[in-house]
Amino acid sequence: MARIVQKFGGTSVADIERIKNAARRVKREADAGNEVVVVVSAMAGTTNQLVDWTRQISRLHDAREYDVVVASGEQVTAGLMALALQDLGVDARSWLGWQIPLKTDEVHGKARIEAIETAEIERRCKDGQIAVVAGFQGIGPRNRVTTLGRGGSDTSAVALAAALKADRCDIFTDVDGVYTTDPRIVAKARKLGRITYEEMLEMASQGARVLEPRSVAMAMNHRVRLQVLSSFVDAPGTLVVDEDEIVEKRVVSGIAYSRQEAKITVARVADRPGVAAAIFGPLADSAINVDMIVQNVSEDGQTTDLTFTVARADLDRTLAVLEGQRAAIGFTALKPDSNVVKISVIGVGMRSHAGVAKQMFQTLADRGINIQVISTSEIKVSVLIAAEYTELALRALHTAYGLDEVG
Amino acid sequence: MARIVQKFGGTSVADIERIKNAARRVKREADAGNEVVVVVSAMAGTTNQLVDWTRQISRLHDAREYDVVVASGEQVTAGLMALALQDLGVDARSWLGWQIPLKTDEVHGKARIEAIETAEIERRCKDGQIAVVAGFQGIGPRNRVTTLGRGGSDTSAVALAAALKADRCDIFTDVDGVYTTDPRIVAKARKLGRITYEEMLEMASQGARVLEPRSVAMAMNHRVRLQVLSSFVDAPGTLVVDEDEIVEKRVVSGIAYSRQEAKITVARVADRPGVAAAIFGPLADSAINVDMIVQNVSEDGQTTDLTFTVARADLDRTLAVLEGQRAAIGFTALKPDSNVVKISVIGVGMRSHAGVAKQMFQTLADRGINIQVISTSEIKVSVLIAAEYTELALRALHTAYGLDEVG
Repeated sequence: MARIVQKFGGTSVADIERIKNAARRVKREADAGNEVVVVVSAMAGTTNQLVDWTRQISRLHDAREYDVVVASGEQVTAGLMALALQDLGVDARSWLGWQIPLKTDEVHGKARIEAIETAEIERRCKDGQIAVVAGFQGIGPRNRVTTLGRGGSDTSAVALAAALKADRCDIFTDVDGVYTTDPRIVAKARKLGRITYEEMLEMASQGARVLEPRSVAMAMNHRVRLQVLSSFVDAPGTLVVDEDEIVEKRVVSGIAYSRQEAKITVARVADRPGVAAAIFGPLADSAINVDMIVQNVSEDGQTTDLTFTVARADLDRTLAVLEGQRAAIGFTALKPDSNVVKISVIGVGMRSHAGVAKQMFQTLADRGINIQVISTSEIKVSVLIAAEYTELALRALHTAYGLDEVG
Repeated sequence: MARIVQKFGGTSVADIERIKNAARRVKREADAGNEVVVVVSAMAGTTNQLVDWTRQISRLHDAREYDVVVASGEQVTAGLMALALQDLGVDARSWLGWQIPLKTDEVHGKARIEAIETAEIERRCKDGQIAVVAGFQGIGPRNRVTTLGRGGSDTSAVALAAALKADRCDIFTDVDGVYTTDPRIVAKARKLGRITYEEMLEMASQGARVLEPRSVAMAMNHRVRLQVLSSFVDAPGTLVVDEDEIVEKRVVSGIAYSRQEAKITVARVADRPGVAAAIFGPLADSAINVDMIVQNVSEDGQTTDLTFTVARADLDRTLAVLEGQRAAIGFTALKPDSNVVKISVIGVGMRSHAGVAKQMFQTLADRGINIQVISTSEIKVSVLIAAEYTELALRALHTAYGLDEVG
């Protein structure tokens, strides 16, 4: 007998029929003799509608009231899922964040989980009752509803799995696993049977939208075995596990891409110590995350160009902040460019395998693709290229690293 | 300075613009120097959608999960209303049933309020903060969400007004007050400036849908001054008050009608003691409420016909129960008739004024309208007539009792 947390995302509970379908998945796991705890997202589209209402109603943004409004979506699904399970003859009850309680800090809108009191849920679990937990929500120190931010239901599921010492945490979504790259672009993309936490974290951080980075990091820290799978097909998904659980090691496991990037070149800043701080200090103060940075070699020994990337959604604000600092920084022009894509090859095998970056650069060069910015980490090489080359680059790299489907 | 509870019904908060409009009404009351506590319903249509989902998902009906689902509607409105007030520069926060807490019994789906802890809300009220309370919901003895049944937000508002010793409880709805009768049918219907609790309770019980009977009874018991008014027009509504607050006493204050009735005649039952118990006992056991009853005079000294009314929604179930008892009761036929309307004239003046019933019967007789069943109480006379005469009867009675608009 195993203890399993099953999390169903918005598309998996988008309407009554899908909730019933998800309930049947839960029942099957329970019928196999396992203890099951279910975590549900809001029905697809609900959260966006609720967020939109809060924006329409007030230019101000009291995150405490925002949380009261948006947390209602998961409340509805939790109740409906409990009813669907009961209709299948399964003993089930819903749990809202404040009922568990799932305690968080007070950072409304993106609260962090501090503690989960699981004693009562565990006791009922042992008695055969299935707990249906409303994802995405908790209770803050002042008895107010909190939410965990984007992808919060994944975080709820992983945190519950950790607290319950679950044997596995299944994340049901609308794709049937983690692929070597986006199969909508690369027809030869393969579903991975297993992937390491570190790789999954990089994949998620670099644009693969199947899991939120925060929930992957939490799973890694607590060694929660994750499975990503589809609620619409009956097949195993991708297991996210420790490196030593993976037998067949690859150098590159996957290729991620992100179109959410924007590049800014700050032209002709003084080539002297402190200029980077003058640029990036104000951006940090404005809570703008800078990703890739490259400082060009000075041609005249006096000025240089500095290029970096930010999230495309932050581009306008970034330009405004820098314009406001023009005198302090000293530059001749800001050159924004949203027509870029970041492509990242990821694999824990890189640690022990040289030449991955070189192969990437050569493959792109062979297709005449110019690399604008490069950044690397221990298990990842990312490049920024013109957006029009996205498909060409992904397919070429997929073949070059031997990821194409066999047969 | 007064303390006022303002309750906004579903049509008054049906969309973002209307919530903003309601918020302006609240702000005006606060700007006048009053302490205001707001109670909100779900946005119009929301509760029906949620109820529909619970029915679609399960033939069973766990009222605890039903409550989790349907209570979400008021949660959304409470958060949005708090945001709308903040946007107007008013300090406001939302309160869910479990946060107050508004404690109820465990009868999920139609729970009764047992206690409301108002200390914290009162403290903040004095500091100038407006409490926005999610109506219709509470918390049961086992820490579960409960709902108060149909019209539950009115009940929440009146109970809060009683607990807070409020000077007035304003019920904002889509009509601008209580009318002598339905103005959609009788053009000469007049808005009443004041009406007594007893009259309002009869009006509500006999079909006038402006207030739920339960909330009126609670207001009467706790002497909460109610005002029924429209959130869409800027005019005083109808005050529901103690009899001694009404200067100009009328014999008849209003005429209500209900099309939700069905009549059943049980033909040729034995005219002997115990037959009524044989009929109405099983109905009571099936939780079917019987309203009007008339037993005809026996013609043959051995058998008689017995006629009574139930809610139209209960008609099929009533017939099934009686058919199941056919042997025990002994009758030749059940004759159902849904083509009926109940018309009630109501007024506390009847207590001291004879001839009201006679005038009703004569007025209807003059129009050739046959009375099928009659029932009376201290301040009410009700008759059952064929549904096709509804408009004719209402207009004739409205004129006969001198209720037509002056001028």
